[in-house]
Amino acid sequence: MTGSTVATPVLELADLHASLSDPLLDTMNFLNEIANRFPDAISFAPGRPYDQPFDAAVVAGYLQRYERHLEQDRGLSHQQAGSLLFQYGRTKGQIHDLVATTIGNDDGIEASPEAVLVTVGAQEGMLLVLRALIRDQRDVLLVGSPCYLGITGAARLLDAPVEVVPEGDAGLDPEAVRERVHRLRAAGRRPRLLYLIPDFANPSGIRMPLVTRERLLRMAAEEELLLLEDNPYGFFARDDTDLPVLKRLDRDRRVIYLGTFAKTCFPGARVGYVVADQLVRAASGPDRLLADELAKLKSMTTVNTSPLSQAAIGGMLLAHRCRLRESNQDRIAAYRDRLERLVAALERHFPAGTRDRSGVGWRVPDGGFFLVMQVPFDADEAALARSAREHRVLWTPMSYFYPTGGGRRQLRLSASYLPVDQIDEGVRRLAGLVRALAPG
Amino acid sequence: MTGSTVATPVLELADLHASLSDPLLDTMNFLNEIANRFPDAISFAPGRPYDQPFDAAVVAGYLQRYERHLEQDRGLSHQQAGSLLFQYGRTKGQIHDLVATTIGNDDGIEASPEAVLVTVGAQEGMLLVLRALIRDQRDVLLVGSPCYLGITGAARLLDAPVEVVPEGDAGLDPEAVRERVHRLRAAGRRPRLLYLIPDFANPSGIRMPLVTRERLLRMAAEEELLLLEDNPYGFFARDDTDLPVLKRLDRDRRVIYLGTFAKTCFPGARVGYVVADQLVRAASGPDRLLADELAKLKSMTTVNTSPLSQAAIGGMLLAHRCRLRESNQDRIAAYRDRLERLVAALERHFPAGTRDRSGVGWRVPDGGFFLVMQVPFDADEAALARSAREHRVLWTPMSYFYPTGGGRRQLRLSASYLPVDQIDEGVRRLAGLVRALAPG
Repeated sequence: MTGSTVATPVLELADLHASLSDPLLDTMNFLNEIANRFPDAISFAPGRPYDQPFDAAVVAGYLQRYERHLEQDRGLSHQQAGSLLFQYGRTKGQIHDLVATTIGNDDGIEASPEAVLVTVGAQEGMLLVLRALIRDQRDVLLVGSPCYLGITGAARLLDAPVEVVPEGDAGLDPEAVRERVHRLRAAGRRPRLLYLIPDFANPSGIRMPLVTRERLLRMAAEEELLLLEDNPYGFFARDDTDLPVLKRLDRDRRVIYLGTFAKTCFPGARVGYVVADQLVRAASGPDRLLADELAKLKSMTTVNTSPLSQAAIGGMLLAHRCRLRESNQDRIAAYRDRLERLVAALERHFPAGTRDRSGVGWRVPDGGFFLVMQVPFDADEAALARSAREHRVLWTPMSYFYPTGGGRRQLRLSASYLPVDQIDEGVRRLAGLVRALAPG
Repeated sequence: MTGSTVATPVLELADLHASLSDPLLDTMNFLNEIANRFPDAISFAPGRPYDQPFDAAVVAGYLQRYERHLEQDRGLSHQQAGSLLFQYGRTKGQIHDLVATTIGNDDGIEASPEAVLVTVGAQEGMLLVLRALIRDQRDVLLVGSPCYLGITGAARLLDAPVEVVPEGDAGLDPEAVRERVHRLRAAGRRPRLLYLIPDFANPSGIRMPLVTRERLLRMAAEEELLLLEDNPYGFFARDDTDLPVLKRLDRDRRVIYLGTFAKTCFPGARVGYVVADQLVRAASGPDRLLADELAKLKSMTTVNTSPLSQAAIGGMLLAHRCRLRESNQDRIAAYRDRLERLVAALERHFPAGTRDRSGVGWRVPDGGFFLVMQVPFDADEAALARSAREHRVLWTPMSYFYPTGGGRRQLRLSASYLPVDQIDEGVRRLAGLVRALAPG
């Protein structure tokens, strides 16, 4: 190589995949960048679990618990157990049986371990399900609006067509979905699945009422639509009423269920799972489970979910006798407390009498990590930058979550990650921002 | 849900993504299934590392080593260090600096840590690089033939066009690639990158000579082609001559480099990486690194590589002072020994005088995990089934690795995973199969 005749190449962004030109991906960068630039800002932006006491010794304990299980309950030699940590693993996962037991105990989901695919977080599950079901540009993924970015992002990556059903104050309306399905079919399209978070949606915080769940399942059966249920926040109701997940109510395998241990165990393992008990029929041969088809795709994305990470989660599940709802009582209380404090702070700093006329409002969510707030200004990146710089408080523009536009004067607040003693001060700063930006 | 009026749905395979109808994905299932059905067979099929002494305590040691690094070298509190294991992590990875140091020490690759993206194995790296560079159906991925299945599989998943350049006995010929590039451009296509394993390719075992590496880089520069270098086996030369990796010879950022710790540390962590120091230019704003664009895509595939897995690998890197080539001396010797034994067993059971007339032959590889053998029968699934049933020996049909056909009378052997005392017996069984299936 002389290097003298040939210039160092530069790739044009416009020549790369279109998802990379999507402003959305840059806005996420913007959020991260602004958080780094103002480290003393109080941030209501990230929807992460709060930090919990954790270190290498804690992980080691879980790994040893899983190792003991392999040796004592499954009769493996110490060497065989070690090999299960060391080697490549089964594509569908190694703790699928423990996962199946746990979701049976916690949510009454009756899943055969063979219908469980362990994934690198729920995100990989989304990617695999979309890839399996979106064959070509006629196929359509339906989402509510506003919508979680992970699913629309995965669709962008795969060039998968997305159609949006606007949500009302009560969340998604099954009849609105049905109407959209009819319209799409009339146009020659194939609506394949509807993605939703029935319990404390990200970003809206809305929980779907039981009667709506039943109507949704009936509609899905009648319209031959699959439902992709994502349930990261299901444990974290604000009261003690837990509604059955769609997958539990599902009588005819309409629901593909996405789970994650990020919020109920720890995010650093990056372990999630898909329950896909749907039957797939080829021209010849026996029917197979959709989980097995997803595993074939997984062998082309990540090969298998880190056996080490699975062992850590497996050890946690065993330590808690496969009952995470019980072991999460402290967290459930902690997230409830954070949400109560957030609501109380809003009540305090935006007193009832002043709200309507000032264009400020919010819907108290039934649980989960998120609260949507109306504000009397455009909650855009300029406002966020000013919020960070002048008021030292961060939030997420709701417009990010509307695939086809919307949410201009809304922001998303999460207190899940905040130290509790910062919540009130954060909302006080937010009130300062609102005063500064409110018109006249 | 009454369940009486609506039948349980069955998904038609033909309605799912076309990659799922690819017979290749089923053949991999076939391989796994046959290995499970004949557990007493000696298997030359898997290209995995041999089992090494390993258990939870070993992992715990590495995690603690990494934790100590965070506290002592990076000045984090114990709680902050624990949080780095517990939480979601940086999308580009947490051990990027250690990775950059290690590949500098081991392979003389000068990479800025910011050009390193930590991935869930090299497989995720392939997926991300392909996704970034294949914008639409005009864009083409070039591969040699035979070719590793992971890259063609990832291309199938993304509907990415693949064109094949046949390899000769000396491996890939840069002029053959150039010719294909010209033909594709004349047809209005955009050849974007060439995937290759220069060191002990899977499946061919071929090492690209130094002069060919230099010619390839020159051709890539002249033709404005990117090279995607995959290097899982680079340490495992049969002799003591290590050739420089393409990325080390790369003067003008033509090479995107894929690495993995699966063979040099342990597969169960599922940690790999991409070095992508190419510049990407948008219509406005400063140039960015391709690694940052890949990270944007990664946020839609796996969000981040398990911080726990990264900590385990980080601890190993630190324990070995970021010099894996040194710490791998035992493994290098072990794989060399396995390959020598395999070759010796072939010499023994297929004596020189009998080979040519019987249609048996092989090329002694320069290193790595794989050896390709010619046989006097169709090495198809029927032959493999018979081999398993009647001769208790397994191998991989080479035809799997030819995207457009080929390798009919070839099989791939790997002794990497076998206990050394089984190698000779395995080849003895293989000789029995050859005698049984040889014509006349």
